[in-house]
Amino acid sequence: MSVAVGILGATGAVGQRLVQLLASHPEFEIETLTASEASAGESYSDAAKWRIESPVPDGVGEMTVTETTPEAVPEDLDLLFSSLPSAVGREVEPAFCEAGHVVSSNSSNHRTAEDVPLTVPEVNGDHLDLIEVQRDERGWDGALVKNPNCSTITMVPPLAALDDAFGLDQVTVATLQAVSGAGYDGVTSMEIIDNAIPHIGGEENKMETESRKLLGEFDGAGVSWHNARVEASCNRIPTLDGHLENVWVETAREATVEAAIDAMESYPSLELHSSPDQLVHVFTDPERPQPRLDRTLEGGMSIAAGGLQETDDGLQFNCLAHNTLRGAAGASLLNGELLLDRGYL
Amino acid sequence: MSVAVGILGATGAVGQRLVQLLASHPEFEIETLTASEASAGESYSDAAKWRIESPVPDGVGEMTVTETTPEAVPEDLDLLFSSLPSAVGREVEPAFCEAGHVVSSNSSNHRTAEDVPLTVPEVNGDHLDLIEVQRDERGWDGALVKNPNCSTITMVPPLAALDDAFGLDQVTVATLQAVSGAGYDGVTSMEIIDNAIPHIGGEENKMETESRKLLGEFDGAGVSWHNARVEASCNRIPTLDGHLENVWVETAREATVEAAIDAMESYPSLELHSSPDQLVHVFTDPERPQPRLDRTLEGGMSIAAGGLQETDDGLQFNCLAHNTLRGAAGASLLNGELLLDRGYL
Amino acid sequence: MSVAVGILGATGAVGQRLVQLLASHPEFEIETLTASEASAGESYSDAAKWRIESPVPDGVGEMTVTETTPEAVPEDLDLLFSSLPSAVGREVEPAFCEAGHVVSSNSSNHRTAEDVPLTVPEVNGDHLDLIEVQRDERGWDGALVKNPNCSTITMVPPLAALDDAFGLDQVTVATLQAVSGAGYDGVTSMEIIDNAIPHIGGEENKMETESRKLLGEFDGAGVSWHNARVEASCNRIPTLDGHLENVWVETAREATVEAAIDAMESYPSLELHSSPDQLVHVFTDPERPQPRLDRTLEGGMSIAAGGLQETDDGLQFNCLAHNTLRGAAGASLLNGELLLDRGYL
Amino acid sequence: MSVAVGILGATGAVGQRLVQLLASHPEFEIETLTASEASAGESYSDAAKWRIESPVPDGVGEMTVTETTPEAVPEDLDLLFSSLPSAVGREVEPAFCEAGHVVSSNSSNHRTAEDVPLTVPEVNGDHLDLIEVQRDERGWDGALVKNPNCSTITMVPPLAALDDAFGLDQVTVATLQAVSGAGYDGVTSMEIIDNAIPHIGGEENKMETESRKLLGEFDGAGVSWHNARVEASCNRIPTLDGHLENVWVETAREATVEAAIDAMESYPSLELHSSPDQLVHVFTDPERPQPRLDRTLEGGMSIAAGGLQETDDGLQFNCLAHNTLRGAAGASLLNGELLLDRGYL
Repeated sequence: MSVAVGILGATGAVGQRLVQLLASHPEFEIETLTASEASAGESYSDAAKWRIESPVPDGVGEMTVTETTPEAVPEDLDLLFSSLPSAVGREVEPAFCEAGHVVSSNSSNHRTAEDVPLTVPEVNGDHLDLIEVQRDERGWDGALVKNPNCSTITMVPPLAALDDAFGLDQVTVATLQAVSGAGYDGVTSMEIIDNAIPHIGGEENKMETESRKLLGEFDGAGVSWHNARVEASCNRIPTLDGHLENVWVETAREATVEAAIDAMESYPSLELHSSPDQLVHVFTDPERPQPRLDRTLEGGMSIAAGGLQETDDGLQFNCLAHNTLRGAAGASLLNGELLLDRGYL
Repeated sequence: MSVAVGILGATGAVGQRLVQLLASHPEFEIETLTASEASAGESYSDAAKWRIESPVPDGVGEMTVTETTPEAVPEDLDLLFSSLPSAVGREVEPAFCEAGHVVSSNSSNHRTAEDVPLTVPEVNGDHLDLIEVQRDERGWDGALVKNPNCSTITMVPPLAALDDAFGLDQVTVATLQAVSGAGYDGVTSMEIIDNAIPHIGGEENKMETESRKLLGEFDGAGVSWHNARVEASCNRIPTLDGHLENVWVETAREATVEAAIDAMESYPSLELHSSPDQLVHVFTDPERPQPRLDRTLEGGMSIAAGGLQETDDGLQFNCLAHNTLRGAAGASLLNGELLLDRGYL
Repeated sequence: MSVAVGILGATGAVGQRLVQLLASHPEFEIETLTASEASAGESYSDAAKWRIESPVPDGVGEMTVTETTPEAVPEDLDLLFSSLPSAVGREVEPAFCEAGHVVSSNSSNHRTAEDVPLTVPEVNGDHLDLIEVQRDERGWDGALVKNPNCSTITMVPPLAALDDAFGLDQVTVATLQAVSGAGYDGVTSMEIIDNAIPHIGGEENKMETESRKLLGEFDGAGVSWHNARVEASCNRIPTLDGHLENVWVETAREATVEAAIDAMESYPSLELHSSPDQLVHVFTDPERPQPRLDRTLEGGMSIAAGGLQETDDGLQFNCLAHNTLRGAAGASLLNGELLLDRGYL
Repeated sequence: MSVAVGILGATGAVGQRLVQLLASHPEFEIETLTASEASAGESYSDAAKWRIESPVPDGVGEMTVTETTPEAVPEDLDLLFSSLPSAVGREVEPAFCEAGHVVSSNSSNHRTAEDVPLTVPEVNGDHLDLIEVQRDERGWDGALVKNPNCSTITMVPPLAALDDAFGLDQVTVATLQAVSGAGYDGVTSMEIIDNAIPHIGGEENKMETESRKLLGEFDGAGVSWHNARVEASCNRIPTLDGHLENVWVETAREATVEAAIDAMESYPSLELHSSPDQLVHVFTDPERPQPRLDRTLEGGMSIAAGGLQETDDGLQFNCLAHNTLRGAAGASLLNGELLLDRGYL
């Protein structure tokens, strides 16, 4: 028996990926699609300028898009996926929670709020129980759960493996990020062809804070952030999908490449529908992973790592993930599956 | 009165840039162009597949290409610029030096040899006097002088400025390198369109060693390498020209952004013909420098920096240079100008 | 003594190119820069997001931008260059003409109006005298002069040469157009990386109509359009600047490659400041012209041609021009220079 | 029961695609893989630098590569797929045919030979019986069958549909071809980033001759080529896969867009394993088909068309196909399936 779900902000780039992923999902069934007021009342096919290579899934194109307000969404919809613009999400997501919905959101608002779980299921699924604290404090029947930024998700699973194995004191990361991370219209061709941009507004800060919350400890009352120092430099390059990252870690205990590879490759995945069989795949060819070749590993839900080397005080490695699958739509979906699995729906 | 010069390996990508730069040079005049045995005897226009946007300079296309052997080059040619493939240069450059020529070489061989000056004129021009040691040891009338790798040159001037101001303990650098750095045929389009490659064979090691030699002290007998630890991760991205780098430095003394900008912008240039007016330009817009917009700053001979931020133990910044101008042909040329200025020709 | 000029729509992509070209112009001096109401009162540096590789010219950045209305522009400004969006230009350009200004416009409105000269100076500069008809009919002291669309300009000079030599019955053209032709934000990176788009709205029609007007005859009262049939197919590809076109012509008289090359290369240029020395350059290497290598020929004001071959009923050739120089800002400027030369200012 | 097959030239770009397609094929089983002498004796994993996004199929990587000579290939291998370089294929393919093998070849040699069938199964599968003539003349037990060039295949199905419906007098075509069409190393990144090349050596001629043979009539003794005039202009652009083409046809009878769409969409496919359900898909959105969005239609085996318009003497349209699937490896495979279906194996 499938759970009826809705998508808030269904016409954008991440919303479209959610539609694609949910259309053939065994546990969830799309019942409601929302968009801005201007599109309300239109069919999904008319409201969304569909940009994914496979066609709009059967049955979805004819659905009528509703406005993104609690009044326009059926009360009994247990789970809402949100890919709203951050400023919009900040306003309306709490209203949906108050109206009793559980919201699994990719939107960047509230990610570092004390009573909002920020989870990558395989890494810190236990943080989900922060929902109890949240409900106590806010008096909600629903709940608000967040997944991190796409560039953060890419590095957190390998970092979690290294933290377990050696302890982390410091993380330094340079990213090479795909244009799709900025949304369909986010980067013009004139900006990026034969070019690179060495700064992505707000992204460095997200990586530095969200990763520490994700790697932190939940004690039943709150999350103590990990105390590693994290320093990020984010670059946009002319690739379509797949964020590549160069990472240096200073470890608390001595680390070897062999033990690090073992820690990454044996880091446990889950048995959720969208979980990859193996969370982190480590390449031995130093020229891998590469965005175009490796971004669709295990349906775009695995992390690819490589280039491991020992340094004076730790390790150096590269990692890669598909930013709109594992890094956005797939991340929200996985949180939804975890919510179902843990009995929150 | 101009000095007659030759170019060893004149038909390759860097050789062509040298031809372009030398054609209108006030101090040097091209007298000899060499290439592999297969091209010897052909006109330069026939031997070189010219790939630069401006046409082959007047008078050069008709010159006859000679073989790359001391016998084929006039004895009285004071200065030879070398852009030979490294394996070839390793063999033949010493033979030219033995035959009495001064060789300013971009080829990667011999760069870390104890008696070979590796110089960026503005940074460590004084190392040039290592030629005396070299001549003593090798019994040459000529001399061999090297410029560093293109990715090393890009970061060394800002690092030198920071070293003077605060002292450097550690340098961590991630590069985003243009395809021209691999030579005209070095990166196929199938490898790099919609992609990035997180490793460039040998490049990381060059950055880690050459930068320490360049920042080292010459005491009249030899060079003591700088003892900062340097860790590099090199990436190839789909840009044509211009290497962009993200750099973190751990400084010996406390550093501020303001003092760092001042140190970089006031770092002295020289009065050589190809010297930029200002060696390092610092942008305040965090989205700059960008390869396509900033690689031709001061004719491609300046370093562009930006994104300066304080970190817990030092500073973070970005830098950029044109890899075939400041990073290769222009670097050799500048060494040639320094050799002339210092009386070595 | 220089003529004071203004730029209507000075902050957009073509407006910026006009600023760049006019800043060092010997005959014209920028006195007024206009933009939308939102930017009025700001300095040009603040109002324009400057995207050209060389910096904002000295003295221009500090100028105050005014609104695009006749009231906001000094009455005595003889010449206004317009790069307004077409819908805006359609409304306000006539108002400026009525207020006594001569407007040289790149905007697509009015191009095929009967009493509006559409000119490429070297090809049909005599059409400029249509201004007399225009003034009679509209009662203007000023005048409105247009240059054609960038893809049209690219092929018209070689077509004019072939028409003179052999007569033209039919023209079939496929274009490979650069992203800058759509303006800075016109094509997103997600649309065009690893892709091509086989249609550009309105562009095919512009090529089919504007080229026939340009190649038509002016008899003192009006322009009889050329009666060749013109069929165009327009494609957007991932290049930054430079439109490349494959053209087939059916000629009235038998054509040879040799005579065609001669007709193109000897087609007269003018002596205006921005005129190239040679209007059409013909390459014999069949792989040329190429956008990146040949778009800046003679400062981007020449047309490059190549690939000439005889067909059963005529000829086949390729041509290329820089779409924002010869194809837009440079085209308007050249019309301005012609207006000055012919005494219309 | 599956047919044992071999791949001549299995390590190249098309050879790798063949390996991928054959690995899961229900009728064929890979038994032999050949490569140049230098690779003979190596495992396939070592000999091939695998560049396809999915991994080397199970069991294939361990196979030992043999030399490309009849002696090195088992006598009882009924079918050999050839993706040899043309110059190599010209020499050795006949030797394999003489040794009794049936060769389905993508190599460009022999394509226009009088007794060699050149087939696109859905279009002119009946030409396959030219094998009888071939065997009579050459005394072979085996046979040589060719598929056309990738750019030819793209336009021939829609042209065949239009020929049936209206008759074709003339075809004019401009192509926008992907870099993979030149093989993995065929186009360097320095040649094509921010660029286009308006000529592909030999390609124009292939399109002009092969299309006329494919659309010709086979009368049991030989093929009378279609007498339409075909004029092609071939361009390389910065896309990875998918050739896009702009086509104009002059028709013998009056054509309408509606009838043309109907002719294309109802053009029959076959029931072979690799046949698409619908051979030609026609888009009504004039901005489609686009390489990145539409090249994988029906597993990359369909032709996408669009942009249909009436002209004075016929029609104009665009078409697109995946050049290494439908245009190369898939084309050879389909010919192999047809050979099996028609009892030639």
